[in-house]
Amino acid sequence: MSFSFLPKEIDFFILFDKLANVAIRASEYFTEICSSGKFDEDTVSKMREIEHEGDDITHEIIRKLNTTFITPFDREDIHALANELDSVIDMINTIVNRMKVYKLNGVNSDLVEFTVVVEKSVRAVAHAVAGLRDTKHLQHALDSCVEVNRLENVGDTMRDNMLAKLFDSAPDTIYLIKWKEIFEDAETVLDVCEDVANVIESIAVKQA
Amino acid sequence: MSFSFLPKEIDFFILFDKLANVAIRASEYFTEICSSGKFDEDTVSKMREIEHEGDDITHEIIRKLNTTFITPFDREDIHALANELDSVIDMINTIVNRMKVYKLNGVNSDLVEFTVVVEKSVRAVAHAVAGLRDTKHLQHALDSCVEVNRLENVGDTMRDNMLAKLFDSAPDTIYLIKWKEIFEDAETVLDVCEDVANVIESIAVKQA
Amino acid sequence: MSFSFLPKEIDFFILFDKLANVAIRASEYFTEICSSGKFDEDTVSKMREIEHEGDDITHEIIRKLNTTFITPFDREDIHALANELDSVIDMINTIVNRMKVYKLNGVNSDLVEFTVVVEKSVRAVAHAVAGLRDTKHLQHALDSCVEVNRLENVGDTMRDNMLAKLFDSAPDTIYLIKWKEIFEDAETVLDVCEDVANVIESIAVKQA
Repeated sequence: MSFSFLPKEIDFFILFDKLANVAIRASEYFTEICSSGKFDEDTVSKMREIEHEGDDITHEIIRKLNTTFITPFDREDIHALANELDSVIDMINTIVNRMKVYKLNGVNSDLVEFTVVVEKSVRAVAHAVAGLRDTKHLQHALDSCVEVNRLENVGDTMRDNMLAKLFDSAPDTIYLIKWKEIFEDAETVLDVCEDVANVIESIAVKQA
Repeated sequence: MSFSFLPKEIDFFILFDKLANVAIRASEYFTEICSSGKFDEDTVSKMREIEHEGDDITHEIIRKLNTTFITPFDREDIHALANELDSVIDMINTIVNRMKVYKLNGVNSDLVEFTVVVEKSVRAVAHAVAGLRDTKHLQHALDSCVEVNRLENVGDTMRDNMLAKLFDSAPDTIYLIKWKEIFEDAETVLDVCEDVANVIESIAVKQA
Repeated sequence: MSFSFLPKEIDFFILFDKLANVAIRASEYFTEICSSGKFDEDTVSKMREIEHEGDDITHEIIRKLNTTFITPFDREDIHALANELDSVIDMINTIVNRMKVYKLNGVNSDLVEFTVVVEKSVRAVAHAVAGLRDTKHLQHALDSCVEVNRLENVGDTMRDNMLAKLFDSAPDTIYLIKWKEIFEDAETVLDVCEDVANVIESIAVKQA
């Protein structure tokens, strides 16, 4: 009978991996849209679908949390991890949406370059999430968290350079206002990835 | 003797209800000011009074927390719930204040429509807070949290539409900068309501 | 043998004091740069060095947390306190960096006045951090938290006045956009100090 707990524990890791994979797909699709320069009803609604998938898995995690007695780590940490992971997807969706609102069609090569860093960070987050399973070798999860922090610093510098260029060369103030926000929001995705890494570090720290 | 704990437990729920009611009054007064279009010394200072009331109750909750042995749920969650509820009031106060700083007198019908959604969300938050009392039927509290999340999505779309309209029709850039901020801040109230809902879900999850 | 735990406990307080002292140095140097009006490669890189020192101590705290069995308070609170304290330093560094990106050389007397409030708040934070040691008199730490909250309110009013003046007298929109952001970011340092105070209050509340 005692084995009956085990499948439930594993469930959470499966769900977290699913959620992290949706985040990866969101970041990949973000790169794809920015590379094509199309922020129309089609691309926005496809991104929204990905975002809804993330919401569904997040709600499933919280529902399971309400009906499961044994959890692999503290209940509030499962809740926080699900919410923060979901926030990564939300933030990417927010940017794509905002680009449509601002009618920013066309390819911005700086932004495309930035989306590659976002993708890397989201993959490192997914790695860290998967690493939580292996409680004997949490250092792997922690190494991925260090990588997420490193990429956040890289992103800071890239955004600063993009902003400096923008203030020097924007054709008009409205253009500047729009792109300033997009560049800053893109960097915020890296900040939210860092928030996920902080939750993961906090979970690992309690199991030390 | 064992009953002596009970009144203290109930105290927290009474205080939380009081704080949630101040949040409701703040959101009602927000609608009222926006409908009248008067952001002068009078309305701003009346809103500030409401905000101070919120601060006082929040401090009372934290003081009681320091002198009470038995609490209805984890001490840090009481602390987080009080702070997040207070942040809802603070954010509404911030907007009213900013409208005075920006001299944005006059009725903006988009904003008035938005304040109605804010009011709904704050009422749902108050419902969720009250629902924490009923530990046998926490589903009621959780249902209100779902409503708070739904309204946040509604608000996202409304704000996007308001921003699209603003960028199309603002008479000048300064006007655009001011209203862009107000619309975004109004949506932030819904985000903070969602933060409260997250704390409530997290509390409910631990009692599952 | 039982004393072997004690030095480890004390370690954390020493590290927190070190981190708080780096925050004080960051705030002092912030005042110094703003008073000189030089935001060049030299001053920016010296501030970045201070920020790296903060990162190093934060990582040391988290590393120690992973290898220490007994901690003076909850592991996740040590983690949160280290991260929030580090965020104070990060935010100050962000502003200095942004001023260089925006080429905002020259002395802005409003900003200089504001940095004095930031310095006071960071010192109050350091006081609160040091006060956590004295578990019998946590009221001292809590009093410093009240002071941090008070200074955040003072900063809100100062920023509002600075913004009102800016909107009345900015020579052009780009100037307005840049300084609006700097003034708001400066106030955000006080918000982050308040976040640290919230963590400290939350820790104190659990030891009540």
